[in-house]
Amino acid sequence: MMSGNQLGVLFSLTTFGEAHGNAVGGIIDGCPANLNVDYELIEKKIKARQTANFTFNSQRKEPDKVEFLSGINKDKTNGFPIAFIIKNKDVNLSHYIENQDVLKPSHAHYTYWKKYGTDNALGSGRASARETIARVVGGCFAMMLLRQLGIEIYCFTSQIGNIKTRKIKKPNRNIIQSNPLYCPCTTTYEKMMDYLQQIQSKKDTIGAKVSCIVENVPIGMGEPVFDKLNADLAKAMLSIPAAKGIEFGSGFTAVSMKGTKHNDIYNTNFQTKNNYSGGIQGGISNGEDIRFSIAFKPIPSIMQDQQSIDTKGNNKIYKAGGRHDVCVVPRVIPIVEAMTALVLADHLLRFNAYKNTIV
Amino acid sequence: MMSGNQLGVLFSLTTFGEAHGNAVGGIIDGCPANLNVDYELIEKKIKARQTANFTFNSQRKEPDKVEFLSGINKDKTNGFPIAFIIKNKDVNLSHYIENQDVLKPSHAHYTYWKKYGTDNALGSGRASARETIARVVGGCFAMMLLRQLGIEIYCFTSQIGNIKTRKIKKPNRNIIQSNPLYCPCTTTYEKMMDYLQQIQSKKDTIGAKVSCIVENVPIGMGEPVFDKLNADLAKAMLSIPAAKGIEFGSGFTAVSMKGTKHNDIYNTNFQTKNNYSGGIQGGISNGEDIRFSIAFKPIPSIMQDQQSIDTKGNNKIYKAGGRHDVCVVPRVIPIVEAMTALVLADHLLRFNAYKNTIV
Amino acid sequence: MMSGNQLGVLFSLTTFGEAHGNAVGGIIDGCPANLNVDYELIEKKIKARQTANFTFNSQRKEPDKVEFLSGINKDKTNGFPIAFIIKNKDVNLSHYIENQDVLKPSHAHYTYWKKYGTDNALGSGRASARETIARVVGGCFAMMLLRQLGIEIYCFTSQIGNIKTRKIKKPNRNIIQSNPLYCPCTTTYEKMMDYLQQIQSKKDTIGAKVSCIVENVPIGMGEPVFDKLNADLAKAMLSIPAAKGIEFGSGFTAVSMKGTKHNDIYNTNFQTKNNYSGGIQGGISNGEDIRFSIAFKPIPSIMQDQQSIDTKGNNKIYKAGGRHDVCVVPRVIPIVEAMTALVLADHLLRFNAYKNTIV
Amino acid sequence: MMSGNQLGVLFSLTTFGEAHGNAVGGIIDGCPANLNVDYELIEKKIKARQTANFTFNSQRKEPDKVEFLSGINKDKTNGFPIAFIIKNKDVNLSHYIENQDVLKPSHAHYTYWKKYGTDNALGSGRASARETIARVVGGCFAMMLLRQLGIEIYCFTSQIGNIKTRKIKKPNRNIIQSNPLYCPCTTTYEKMMDYLQQIQSKKDTIGAKVSCIVENVPIGMGEPVFDKLNADLAKAMLSIPAAKGIEFGSGFTAVSMKGTKHNDIYNTNFQTKNNYSGGIQGGISNGEDIRFSIAFKPIPSIMQDQQSIDTKGNNKIYKAGGRHDVCVVPRVIPIVEAMTALVLADHLLRFNAYKNTIV
Repeated sequence: MMSGNQLGVLFSLTTFGEAHGNAVGGIIDGCPANLNVDYELIEKKIKARQTANFTFNSQRKEPDKVEFLSGINKDKTNGFPIAFIIKNKDVNLSHYIENQDVLKPSHAHYTYWKKYGTDNALGSGRASARETIARVVGGCFAMMLLRQLGIEIYCFTSQIGNIKTRKIKKPNRNIIQSNPLYCPCTTTYEKMMDYLQQIQSKKDTIGAKVSCIVENVPIGMGEPVFDKLNADLAKAMLSIPAAKGIEFGSGFTAVSMKGTKHNDIYNTNFQTKNNYSGGIQGGISNGEDIRFSIAFKPIPSIMQDQQSIDTKGNNKIYKAGGRHDVCVVPRVIPIVEAMTALVLADHLLRFNAYKNTIV
Repeated sequence: MMSGNQLGVLFSLTTFGEAHGNAVGGIIDGCPANLNVDYELIEKKIKARQTANFTFNSQRKEPDKVEFLSGINKDKTNGFPIAFIIKNKDVNLSHYIENQDVLKPSHAHYTYWKKYGTDNALGSGRASARETIARVVGGCFAMMLLRQLGIEIYCFTSQIGNIKTRKIKKPNRNIIQSNPLYCPCTTTYEKMMDYLQQIQSKKDTIGAKVSCIVENVPIGMGEPVFDKLNADLAKAMLSIPAAKGIEFGSGFTAVSMKGTKHNDIYNTNFQTKNNYSGGIQGGISNGEDIRFSIAFKPIPSIMQDQQSIDTKGNNKIYKAGGRHDVCVVPRVIPIVEAMTALVLADHLLRFNAYKNTIV
Repeated sequence: MMSGNQLGVLFSLTTFGEAHGNAVGGIIDGCPANLNVDYELIEKKIKARQTANFTFNSQRKEPDKVEFLSGINKDKTNGFPIAFIIKNKDVNLSHYIENQDVLKPSHAHYTYWKKYGTDNALGSGRASARETIARVVGGCFAMMLLRQLGIEIYCFTSQIGNIKTRKIKKPNRNIIQSNPLYCPCTTTYEKMMDYLQQIQSKKDTIGAKVSCIVENVPIGMGEPVFDKLNADLAKAMLSIPAAKGIEFGSGFTAVSMKGTKHNDIYNTNFQTKNNYSGGIQGGISNGEDIRFSIAFKPIPSIMQDQQSIDTKGNNKIYKAGGRHDVCVVPRVIPIVEAMTALVLADHLLRFNAYKNTIV
Repeated sequence: MMSGNQLGVLFSLTTFGEAHGNAVGGIIDGCPANLNVDYELIEKKIKARQTANFTFNSQRKEPDKVEFLSGINKDKTNGFPIAFIIKNKDVNLSHYIENQDVLKPSHAHYTYWKKYGTDNALGSGRASARETIARVVGGCFAMMLLRQLGIEIYCFTSQIGNIKTRKIKKPNRNIIQSNPLYCPCTTTYEKMMDYLQQIQSKKDTIGAKVSCIVENVPIGMGEPVFDKLNADLAKAMLSIPAAKGIEFGSGFTAVSMKGTKHNDIYNTNFQTKNNYSGGIQGGISNGEDIRFSIAFKPIPSIMQDQQSIDTKGNNKIYKAGGRHDVCVVPRVIPIVEAMTALVLADHLLRFNAYKNTIV
């Protein structure tokens, strides 16, 4: 499928559904048969995406419920496409109806209108973060596959506004999971919470940086020269709403580094002392931890009226309404994990394809 | 094709060739018939990729020559696959032969060995920057198509080491093209040159940041939710050797920005005052300039001996040899342009597919 | 997606669902925005696939009901993925449970077991004709697109057992639609009905040949050298359960024809006197009617006990059970139409992609 | 790549080149590393495609020579794209130049003109059988992979005009290879030769049926519901110039068969007594021989003047010229083998992708 609603070659996810339609959902295809379906994992990740666990974020009371339509038999995958739906609750559209011909700043309303032809705000319902729930479900199946090989993905908040966590080689997973911001440092977590409260009280929003570490990746995953592992991860991450950039290993700091410093020197176990490469060399995993970070912009939905125009080009006020998150963190965390898992599961199968071929 | 050597859905480039093989080249498929082939453009871009135009970079004397095998008739494309080859000159392999079982730090030698099974250094010849010449040729055909719509791509060096160009809304293309570093500011150019000379005298290398601006992009290009224009550009850029990160519009600075500041406000011409979005909203071009920057690491080939190990895990010295660039800039500039053009040409055709369908 | 449950490049259908699962359905992606959804067409085609309209075929009383989850807004497509489901009714599984470890002759039980690992008969539920309902729904959307250009598809029964319809240049569509077998000749229809009754009374099944004509196809559809229009149609048709062969235009009779006879001579309107080519030359539509026929085997589910083996290789009797059709005709007719429409809609969009590119 | 010049998902072939251009060739991608390159096989198959070994067919004196540009190191594949070219010899274009604005009956001239815009006969050079040489080379690499598993493909001529070989369960490969028509029966071979001589003396051409058997196919290859093994084979075969139809196992005779007769009954070794299924059940190989036949039309290039029109629609005579084959057989035989090998190699890798995944 080349219409943009699908990711992956062998292990693929296709999503469907608009924010204000009947349901969102997807089809996971290419998932191997005989995997135990871990419903708890799915529920946990869905919940992590849904609620902020703290008062700053928009909360929806009822939990989203995933309904599986196919691909599972007696709690195991059967090798066939796994279709699932999550019904949309009765959404209060009153805010949208009021604003429907005023362009929301830094939002997809305008581009969706021009591309698909629906000029009111509901026309960009596909661009809503609502769609990402399907990614989380797809990602859970990818994780079920990956963890059979011991591959572990974990994500954390490395920066909100100007508050950064210290650079640590190996963030403590227990700390990450112990606080609602997935922050690997307790003191920083508290600063971040204070800051978010400030931002919220000013009816504003703030950007964030999320980091991801993947452990126990087998050597050899990635398909140069175009489907490099970092290239495919970059695509997947930049497809997340609000993502503005990605960096691997040393990332943008590499710009001011010298080769003598940046080169990853091997020890006699074929491991590198530093990991500026972020676990990927020449587009292929080298057995070190894969490391990357993603920049997210401040959420464009703010609780203040904004100057804008309507679809005819007249100056208009875009009126504040609804209830919105202060920051993509923490709800974006399970989405980043899911996208990472989807890319790795696909590359794992592509890698496997060549394993048995040669004597 | 899903083996990683191909980019694009409708307008595609497949490349082949290893650094030490007979030839490199590629097939451009899906290029519309009847385009005038601009041989001068190809020659110019090939030359830009090949020579540094200044003394710091490795220079190859003879120009690379592109031979077209198909797809062109009377200097016009005929709608069929455009195959081309560039023969490799007699490469001096003496350096490689000497070092062939010692792993080159921060290089693809190790991962290629583990993935494809050839344990000597020549086994990673596909990972060499030599392959990128095919991307430059492919990109030229994409540019020929894009400029029919007035779409213009230009790239410049925005940072080397810690030397940055000032933020300018619209860099001057004449200045960019007047200096060998594609720097948009004459004073900064001179500082960069001095710095590169220092780095070279220390037999070291340095990272760089390259920025790209695309003008006159029609509104509506990009295929959400996965094949967003920024997502596909991110993939293409991260597939360039030495790329460590990418950011669009505000990029990583968005992390510390507030929504009230970051939101792009429309004027009554449907243009935005700022362009923190980098010309893309919801994965679709919005008619503003597309803007992104790429971080490149320092070239791992340095002119100093380095501590390493051999393929058996014994400590060994990787001996300096060959002649290497000090920085990916300026030779990476035409490669970034080419990859940008390839992604845009592909999305242009995908966009066109839907234009004629509805009454 | 490369896992086999998807067809099409730009206009694509992905199906999901097993015969004995909760639901079957699919996602139509790449359908242009703003098409009026013709629910009556969908209902009509669903019904045609479901009931035989005559007493010989297995009849399910309740009509299948299609539920749309996304991609439609105010009865028009909105450009987003169109997801739909059809719930499976309470199927009487008693027959399957009884026979579950006995291999059903000429059925997918054995190959599905070996490929996906489920050794009982329910493991091949994906191979059931139940899945084809999703194709019919997908095909309806393709038809809605095609008929905007006046493209018309119609299928008819050209042979059952040894009873053939006369070769007619242009079958009468009214006659085809006036009888439950879609036979273009009233006398032949009666013979076919008598014959089917005989076959049924002997608790046997019989093969059939179905022919398809597509009118008003624009010149230029098809993408040589591999994605020729006939090649893609052949793939689509052979993916229909029970299909054993396909032929275009003169088909297998061409084997015994001479070039002087077979060559299609042009008249001065660029039309051909004969159409042995079946409307496709060099893989591209030439403006004549596209014509092809498909051979279907007798349905392997017969109402007699059959000699077989169980999954351990012991001789066993596969016991007759359930209620089965005597012949794939007429229920396969809307499936053939749908697959034809899907291929043509995809090629139409691919064709369109190149229309606007060149001055 | 979705522009039609590529076949295969993991093991893919992309071809390029027009009949009257500089060269034809291709890129084989996804071929596993470490395969011994069997140059003799390539030479043998190239020669089989090129010469008829008997006086009836057009003969080109100089053998085609394949030049490899990449993907091979020390006579082994290295896992990278294998690019190859075959230079076109100085073709005598005088015949084409004379006829260039007259449409050749049953030829791609008209459709290529309408699709790609070149109105003279050279514009359809891509449609020439010349391109198939690249398929033969690609197919050889697929065979090198397949025979590691013992998979063997062989093709034979089963019918020319009305002269048919007897139905034999297992044609004798020695006989097939002992005569220039690849006929499995010596007496029939002689009749066919006589008949071809007659046809040639009348300056006419004749159709043919070619059959293919694949032995030792592992159980489980094929990806339902759309990428069924038979569906992908059908596509590949119908992409061969002059192919008009394909049938698997019982094929079109199944139309007049009853279920009680057609059903393949298992013996206790999980093999079937008959093989009406042609080795494929539900789109997946079942371990029996894969069997299919392809109908080819008479070659449209005949040595007689033909009534036609020019590109302006005026009545004109298309003048006989050049030297042409009497029948696609025997030169099409290695092409059918190659296409079969390409499809199977691709499905083998897709099959392998799932082998290592589950405990």
